[in-house]
Formats: sequence, structure tokens, C-alpha cells
Amino acid sequence: MKEKVITSRSEDYSEWYLDVIREAELAENGPARGTIIIKPNGYAIWEAVQNELNQRFKELGVRNVYFPLLIPEKLISMEKEHIEGFAPEVAVVTYAGGKELEEKLILRPTSETIMYETFSRWIQSYRDLPLLINQWANVVRWELRPRLFLRGTEFLWQEGHTAHSTETEADEFSRKILQLYKNFFETFLAIPVISGVKPDLEKFAGALRTYTLEAMMQDGKALQVATSHNLGQNFSKAFNIKFLDQNQQANFVWQTSWGVSTRVIGALVMTHSDDNGLILPPSVAPTAVIVTLVGEITSALIRFGQEVLLTLKNNGFTAEVDDRPIRPGNKFYEWERKGVPLRLEIGQTELKSSKLVASRRDNFEKFTFSVSNLVDTVRNTLNEIQKNLFRIAQERLERNIIEVETWNQFLDAINSNKFVKAFIDPSREILTKIKEETLATLRCIPLTEQNEEGFCVKSNKSAKVKGIFAKAY
Amino acid sequence: MKEKVITSRSEDYSEWYLDVIREAELAENGPARGTIIIKPNGYAIWEAVQNELNQRFKELGVRNVYFPLLIPEKLISMEKEHIEGFAPEVAVVTYAGGKELEEKLILRPTSETIMYETFSRWIQSYRDLPLLINQWANVVRWELRPRLFLRGTEFLWQEGHTAHSTETEADEFSRKILQLYKNFFETFLAIPVISGVKPDLEKFAGALRTYTLEAMMQDGKALQVATSHNLGQNFSKAFNIKFLDQNQQANFVWQTSWGVSTRVIGALVMTHSDDNGLILPPSVAPTAVIVTLVGEITSALIRFGQEVLLTLKNNGFTAEVDDRPIRPGNKFYEWERKGVPLRLEIGQTELKSSKLVASRRDNFEKFTFSVSNLVDTVRNTLNEIQKNLFRIAQERLERNIIEVETWNQFLDAINSNKFVKAFIDPSREILTKIKEETLATLRCIPLTEQNEEGFCVKSNKSAKVKGIFAKAY
Repeated sequence: MKEKVITSRSEDYSEWYLDVIREAELAENGPARGTIIIKPNGYAIWEAVQNELNQRFKELGVRNVYFPLLIPEKLISMEKEHIEGFAPEVAVVTYAGGKELEEKLILRPTSETIMYETFSRWIQSYRDLPLLINQWANVVRWELRPRLFLRGTEFLWQEGHTAHSTETEADEFSRKILQLYKNFFETFLAIPVISGVKPDLEKFAGALRTYTLEAMMQDGKALQVATSHNLGQNFSKAFNIKFLDQNQQANFVWQTSWGVSTRVIGALVMTHSDDNGLILPPSVAPTAVIVTLVGEITSALIRFGQEVLLTLKNNGFTAEVDDRPIRPGNKFYEWERKGVPLRLEIGQTELKSSKLVASRRDNFEKFTFSVSNLVDTVRNTLNEIQKNLFRIAQERLERNIIEVETWNQFLDAINSNKFVKAFIDPSREILTKIKEETLATLRCIPLTEQNEEGFCVKSNKSAKVKGIFAKAY
Repeated sequence: MKEKVITSRSEDYSEWYLDVIREAELAENGPARGTIIIKPNGYAIWEAVQNELNQRFKELGVRNVYFPLLIPEKLISMEKEHIEGFAPEVAVVTYAGGKELEEKLILRPTSETIMYETFSRWIQSYRDLPLLINQWANVVRWELRPRLFLRGTEFLWQEGHTAHSTETEADEFSRKILQLYKNFFETFLAIPVISGVKPDLEKFAGALRTYTLEAMMQDGKALQVATSHNLGQNFSKAFNIKFLDQNQQANFVWQTSWGVSTRVIGALVMTHSDDNGLILPPSVAPTAVIVTLVGEITSALIRFGQEVLLTLKNNGFTAEVDDRPIRPGNKFYEWERKGVPLRLEIGQTELKSSKLVASRRDNFEKFTFSVSNLVDTVRNTLNEIQKNLFRIAQERLERNIIEVETWNQFLDAINSNKFVKAFIDPSREILTKIKEETLATLRCIPLTEQNEEGFCVKSNKSAKVKGIFAKAY
């Protein structure tokens, strides 16, 4: 019998999330409050994300760097909005090497300030532009309500930072990155996302404009999974980053910054998994195929398993063999909980017939195929799983976006955990009121919904944009 | 004319080191004292190191993880020797999220304590062993004399941590890692190393035994480039990491830890570079071949350059084209300073004759070859450069190890910046005396020099090991 180790989503969604993470051995809490220990199965997902994004960034000419963790207090205070936004969250080193420090050092909550002080020396001429860099790093933000992968006092991320000679080029670049992220989420992670602009209330501290990707979790809550900021000249003026243009005129540069964090692992869990545990899309799965030997584990069976493994590896699939002498059911449930997309079963019957049994993690379909079709079958099945997971998530997203016109409709929809689309006056006052009354926030104004006209769902005054509201993580 | 931007080694070795780093654009100082900004050219070297070591670790079954940066003070104090060793170097977060913290948090100087607290929960049975993990992370140690790549208040490294069921297995594993590192340094980085054991005075705080790799820099100083520690049961007893063996007896595990840091970039600079700038071995060079277009940059020339580039890339070489309309001499010196191992020149003459000019960075040899032999010529030349760089460093190392018997010989050799081999009583008292009198330290007792007998070079008493002494970074 199958042991019930994972709480069902309908019973307790939050417990389900933590159970899936524990059973897939992705992560656990660290000893200091809000910290996370990312275990091998979780870190392998992060490495897959890193490899994929690095390739995509490289195609745009972005180069990786590493800037210090420790930011002198005076630097981080140089851009006014920025320090106001981050002050409540920072952690401070006051003591080091056996002494009280003369100047306190902030653990980076993000690296705009420490990088841009340097940019003012790196950038002199239009020939130095665009400057396109990225770093993979840990950042520290004091979180009051930590939650594995979603919010932590320390998390891992990449932060890209660019400088351009014109406002248009900077805005285009920040949108290009948003598009890169969207494609990455949809094709690689099979997570459909809504792209849009954040209202002023929710934008990055110091940005002119924050672009965002919002994903819908299975409980209907929104998760912001990526942001790309058009920083305008706010930081270049604060840090005096100027370049001489072709006419020898000095101008401040236009900047962007953008990031994706280990939160994506939480997004993967809450987009695809089911009451049996984790489900990983094949593209990002550290092991896409598990070859389970069942029944009597003879040396002939082990040899057959190794042949299958080798064929899979030689054809570019990530695969493993499970030849442990334990009950097949235990093996199956274990790989199920770990989210491996495709399981192949080989026992004495399969060995004799040269046929294998395949079992899909996404829909539990089982079928038999000849070992001579191994590579094609695996390739096609993994492709189908990837597409199916995206389709399921996409349909869920579309089904759960409700367009409303009145405040009562808005309340009904929000209280049913939907994404709500409505005309809105995205002012600080209106949005704060809505948040206080409903806990919902304006997740974004989709880029496609910016040139319409109607009446604000809250104030009834004329409004020029439609926004997407939701309760959010 | 060539601009003199790099101080010669004979004039000022320390200045030369910093000049090479600056001109190759590897790194610069960060704003907080002792911190480093690793620039794209430097970080690309680190990425090559990461890729190579990750592959080698994976073959041993090591899996990557991520543990928190922030260590509660009580945890780091649990192993007595460990905290005594690290206390003077730690940086402490006392304030976060707008409040004084109730428990201070230490920025990890290394992760034994935070990991091993967790190991005591992960390890229950002999079936959980060996546990083999590694993490790539930043660590913080307050350094009084920071120096780019060699010592910094923050540096990047990998730290492997393993737990085993027997003492023998743990010691064998720590030696296996030492051997892995040695092979990595010699074949990948072309840096010859001496492997041995640290004397008690110099071992890792909390280790039973520290194995080390010592490399010789061009000024004759030693640089410790890798360590592998047999931790015995010191930490398993402090953190209560026990397993039930096959007879259901509870035993403490035997542990190892081992690491390589961004210091290897400093080692690369000081092993291979010359008065013209950086020299990188082809294996680790982010760009192994630079294709420089010279003379009139016509579209036919650019096309030819692109064809050469594509052929190189399709054959697995890292290559770039420099088609900038600047003076050939400036291009050559720039790539020379950046350490690219092989430069190909293409101008109108080469275009017409379908022959290219090749120029080696290691020995400045130039030769002409037919484009039809491109791939073989490049492959062979890069192999030769790799071997030649190792050979040069190896000969330097061998030439500069002096074996001595008397204290006067010892002083002469140390004062001529040699590595000195001698019989030694490796006691704390003798080694401290030698260090005070000469600044030299016992770098290691080579594994091959542990079963001889003679008289201690300092005390004249009978001694059973020979050690290697040197002044060190």
C-alpha cells in the first residue's frame, strides 16, 4: 500500500507545498530564521536554470561578473528612493576581525549601488556602451514571513545590469529581457506567464518602470517570477555615470536591471505538481528518465538496464538506473514523489520480449514499446510531457482570469481566488485601498492592455488601462 | 611603439602582479576594504574552473548543494579548535530588519559547522554513507593584508564535505581528492604542484590531518592552492553525527572537507605570465584563439574571418574575431596583455594566399600555415602551448628546490627565494622559531618523504620526515 506522506492540495495547500518539497528532497529550513538549505535535488534544478539562462544571456552579449557581498553604508544610501525601499530589509555587519567596524557594511539586498559606483569609472565614452553584465549571487533581505523558495532572508539569483546611451535603447533592452524571460518560463519551465508593467506602488525602489512576469499558482494566487527594470537615469545621476557621446557631449547613461531567483523552484512546484508529489517538466528535470529494474534483479537484467541507460545518455537524455533490490512499488512512488517525468520499467518479461513499459508522470499513462524504438519513443514522450504540462497550466491560467466591470464582480472574483482583469486608475491611493479591503494587489498592467478606455472598477472614474489583480505570494 | 603599461617582474614583482591583472581586466578592488570585483575576463576563468571541477567531482558521485551564508553564533562555537582558529577572522551581523538581533549571525568563513549540524539529521544508517556533497559559495574572512585573488575579506570557492563509515575510507577519500586536484592543476591549469601534509601548526582548525598542494610562483614564493582535510571524528563528535552500522551499532562518522578558491586565478597569473602581461593555458582560457583582421578591413576579409571563426567553433575551440578598424600593433598588444594563447592574423595577403599567420603567446613564435590545415594546426599548437607552459613551470619548480643539511645552507637557500627541502622535527616550537627567524614556513611534508631518517636542520636532533620550506603568500 502507498504510504500517505503528502497532504492533498484540497486539504491544506500550504502543507501540500511543504510536503512536496520535503518528499522530493529539494530543500529544508536552515538554522537561522528564514534561511534555506538547498539539497542536491533542488540545487540540480537551479543549475539547469543557470545553464539555460547563461546561454540565453550570452546570445545577447551579456558577460558574467562578481561584485562584493559587502556594501559600505554610504554607497547604498546614494539613491534616495532605493535606500528608502530597502532600509527595512537590510542586514548589517557591524563587527569584524575582532573589532567594531568604523563604517557599517550592508549585505547586498541587490547590487545596483555597489555596481554603479564602479560603472562611473568603467564608462567614459559611447564606445564603452552598451555595458551588459550579469552576476549569479546570494542576496540578503530580512523577511518577516519566510517561506521555502518563495521568500527567504537569503536567496540565490541572477541580477543583470546594463547601461545604454539612449532612453529608447534602455527601455527596449529591458523589454527584450522580459521577452527572454517569458520565453524561458514558457518553453523551458512550462510555466505560462502574464507580462506587464508594475504600477508605481509596486515598482522597484529607484526604477522608472518595472516590467514583470506573473504566474498563477494552483491555488489561484499570483507569483511574481521575474522582473526587468528600466532605471532611467535615477542611478546614473546619483552615481555620476556619464559618457562622452560622438559629439563630445557628456550625458548620463540610461540603465536597466533584471533578475530571476531560486523562487522559480517554488513556481515549478506550485505550477506542475500534484497530490502524489513533484512533477518536473523534462527540460529542467535533472533526471528526465528513470530506468527502474523490477522483479528479480539478475545480472542479465542489470546489463540490459545499463544498455538502455547508455543509449539514452548517448542521445543526450539525462537518465539514471534504479537497480536497488527493493519492492517495485516503493521505487515507483519514490520517483513519482521526486517528479521524474518518465519512468521506464524493465523486468524479466521485458528482458525476454525486448519491450519496455513506459509510465508518464504527468498523466500516469502507461504503454509498452519495443527497445528498438527507445530513442524516438523517449524523445517524443518527453516532448509530449513538456507540452502537456504547459497546456494544463495555460488552460488553468486562461480559465481563471475573470474580466469584471463592477466592484461587486471584482470582490466575487477575488474571493474565488481568480485573477481579475479590470479597468483601473493605478494610483497609489486607489491601489492601497483595494489592497486593504481585499488583500489583492495590482499584479501588472499587461503590455497589451494599455491603450483602452473605460471606468475604474474601484473609483468609477475614467481609466485608461486594464490591470490584472490577484492575491499574491 | 609599444606603450609600457606593465612593470617588469625584475623591477617590482608585486606591482607587476597588479599591472597584469589590471591590463588583462581580470579584477579590481571593491569599495569595502579587502573586497574584490571580478570583471568579465576574470570571471570567465572562474567559470572554466567551475565547469572542469564539477565534471571531475561528478565522476566521484559528489552532488552540489547550497547552505546558508548566515551561521548562528552558537553553531560555529561547537567545535573548540575550529572556533579558536576562526574567531579572529569572522564578520558578524548584529542588526537586521530594523532591529538588533537576539542571536548574532556569523558570515560563513567555511561551512563545516552549519553543514554538520544538518548532517546529524541526514545521516542515520550506513545506507546514508558515504555522503558526498559540494557547494560553490562566497565566504568571508577578515584579512589584514588583502591582495587581489590571493587573500580577501570575501572570496569565492568550492567546499566539498563528505562523511564515511570508516577512518580508512575517509582518509582515502581526502587523498583521492588531493590527487584529483593535483591532476586538475597540472593538466588543466598547467601549474605543477607539490602534494603533502601540513604540520600541526599549519593545519585546518578542527582537522586531524590537512593535505595540501603547494605551487611555486615566479618569485620563488609558495602559494597554497588547494587543501583536503581528514577531519577524523572531531566534528562528528561535536555535532553528534552517528550512524547505525550493519550490526545496529551506533558509530560516529569520519569526515573530510576540501576546497579550491578564486586564488587559483592569482596562481595562474603568477605561474605563467610575463612582462608583456597575462598568459593563459589553452585549457582554461575563455578565448583560446583570437582571429585578428589586419590591414584594410574589407568585406571579403570579414567574411574570411567569419569562416575561420565558424570552423574553429564547430571544432570545439573557443575563439573570437577582432575586426576593429584599429592599428594591428594595438590589437596584438591588447590580446597579448589579455593572455590569449594563440593569435591568428589575417590580412589581404593571407586572404589571397589562403594562408594564415599564427603567433604563439607563450614563446612569440610565428609561423604560416595553409587554411586547409586550420583545425589540425590550431589543435596541435594549443596542445603544444599547454605542454610548454607546464614544462616551463615544472622546470622552474625543480630547479628551485634545494635540498640542504645544515642551518646555514637553509638560510642561504631561503634568502635566495628557493623552496628548501630538509629533515625536520615538525613540532610547533621548532617551526615557530624558523618562521620568526626566516619568515619561511613548512609548506608541507611531501607524501613521498615520510619514511626517511636524518637530523633536523634546525635542532640537529634525529628526525623522521623531510619537509619543504618556503616563504609564502
